[in-house]
Amino acid sequence: MDTLIAGLVQHPCSADREGNLAADVAGIRAAAARGARLVLLQELHATRYFCQREDAACFDWAEPIPGPTTERLGRLAAELSVVIVASLFERRAAGVYHNTAVVLDRDGSLAGRYRKMHIPDDPGFREKYYFTPGDLGFTPIDTSLGRLGVLVCWDQWYPEAARLMALAGAQALLYPTAIGWDPRDPEDERKRQRDAWITVQRAHAIANALPVLACNRCGEEPDPEGSTPGIRFWGSSFAAGPQGEILAEAPADASAVLVAELPLARSETLRRAWPYLRDRRVDAYADLLLRYRD
Amino acid sequence: MDTLIAGLVQHPCSADREGNLAADVAGIRAAAARGARLVLLQELHATRYFCQREDAACFDWAEPIPGPTTERLGRLAAELSVVIVASLFERRAAGVYHNTAVVLDRDGSLAGRYRKMHIPDDPGFREKYYFTPGDLGFTPIDTSLGRLGVLVCWDQWYPEAARLMALAGAQALLYPTAIGWDPRDPEDERKRQRDAWITVQRAHAIANALPVLACNRCGEEPDPEGSTPGIRFWGSSFAAGPQGEILAEAPADASAVLVAELPLARSETLRRAWPYLRDRRVDAYADLLLRYRD
Repeated sequence: MDTLIAGLVQHPCSADREGNLAADVAGIRAAAARGARLVLLQELHATRYFCQREDAACFDWAEPIPGPTTERLGRLAAELSVVIVASLFERRAAGVYHNTAVVLDRDGSLAGRYRKMHIPDDPGFREKYYFTPGDLGFTPIDTSLGRLGVLVCWDQWYPEAARLMALAGAQALLYPTAIGWDPRDPEDERKRQRDAWITVQRAHAIANALPVLACNRCGEEPDPEGSTPGIRFWGSSFAAGPQGEILAEAPADASAVLVAELPLARSETLRRAWPYLRDRRVDAYADLLLRYRD
Repeated sequence: MDTLIAGLVQHPCSADREGNLAADVAGIRAAAARGARLVLLQELHATRYFCQREDAACFDWAEPIPGPTTERLGRLAAELSVVIVASLFERRAAGVYHNTAVVLDRDGSLAGRYRKMHIPDDPGFREKYYFTPGDLGFTPIDTSLGRLGVLVCWDQWYPEAARLMALAGAQALLYPTAIGWDPRDPEDERKRQRDAWITVQRAHAIANALPVLACNRCGEEPDPEGSTPGIRFWGSSFAAGPQGEILAEAPADASAVLVAELPLARSETLRRAWPYLRDRRVDAYADLLLRYRD
């Protein structure tokens, strides 16, 4: 397969779970109608980003995998003959919950899952409370459209994660995301943050000669405790080619369905012209397994 | 030290070694006059980029370290009280030559050296013929101005190298470079290549919350064998801050002396706000030491 048409569905999330999923379904249908064979949704797309505060009641929103949402999205995948990459709050067992991306193949089957490996925790993003760190490693998921390097949000800041997916044969990197601004930050700082988010992911494309898809929510979500101005999610979902070139880009502040043609065959052409993988100094990388070298 | 003013000296190289070094010296003086306390030179700045072809006579250009060039630049460093990061063709022994960056401290002493670890080899860039792979690892160099993560050119495509320097306490990443276009490539491809080169290095800044300096030569150099149109070096030297923001940028096709103030203290502020180093999954990175996972 030389190229693959991919879609991304960006929208704000309200407190209405059914409404959020309806926006996802409408976006998937719109992307498929424009030729997309693979559709990426944003992180935790069924709900508000509940990690602004620590509240045990939110664990009620977790669901098993397979479960109601994977069944519903699997039926849609089969109906449209598309691969869907979705992001769920997984209930694995009492007390064991994950931030998990799932891949539904074109026959509706569950092709695989990825449990978020890098878990953030900072004011407004208290994920270490909710999510047990992933234990499936950086393992791509095989589908009828190819091998997908599915990662989640905070992973996108780690070159290690992208590299490990590439070394395991991923043909594209996909990042469901929920990232936004603290509205109290000044505009120049907000610009640097959003630019950094785009740039670091474009660099994963470049360093590994793979296309990258990042799908982020947009819209403002209030702080349930009312102690901060909440989060202004910065949208800006994008598709980049294997030299980091932007193929399609969504606005920061509005819903969007992006469709982009990924030039999969160029990965091999580029890796012949720019043979980074050949020259890695694996004999000298051992300290990457240290927390710090001192 | 909260900030550090850094300079970069970009120029074309001719077959006149003394003329090339004179351009370096003039650039260092100009940068120091504008307040720079650290000056980075381009890769192999004393000579043309001789690696376009494989010619044993070129080994005559290698020199010992310490040697004539480090002595000369050391005297200049002491005179101006600046740290100079230079790039030499090192003759270590008969048959053992390295592509080596040296750091001269403000007292003129040789603070340390870095031997290029990742050695490229592709048409026009036949470095594996000339350069024995470095054996000093990814070890920053301590100076009176701080700990410098000095790397060289092809290293700039490797997130592993940047991360290892950061984990070893580097306060900035520095890349002497010699990279250019094949003039036969179409303009859109040349644009993607240059953008990728800038983007991947900005991402090292972002992923490690460190400033990055990249100093590249400019100008056209003919193929000594006359079988290709030679290389059009793309200049575009730049300084980026720890969020990847561009602080200063040189043109693609002309000499330049850049001066930029590096906000060193922001690295710790940023690492508190964006604690990537805290969350690295070192338990799951072992496969980074593999060539490929199959």
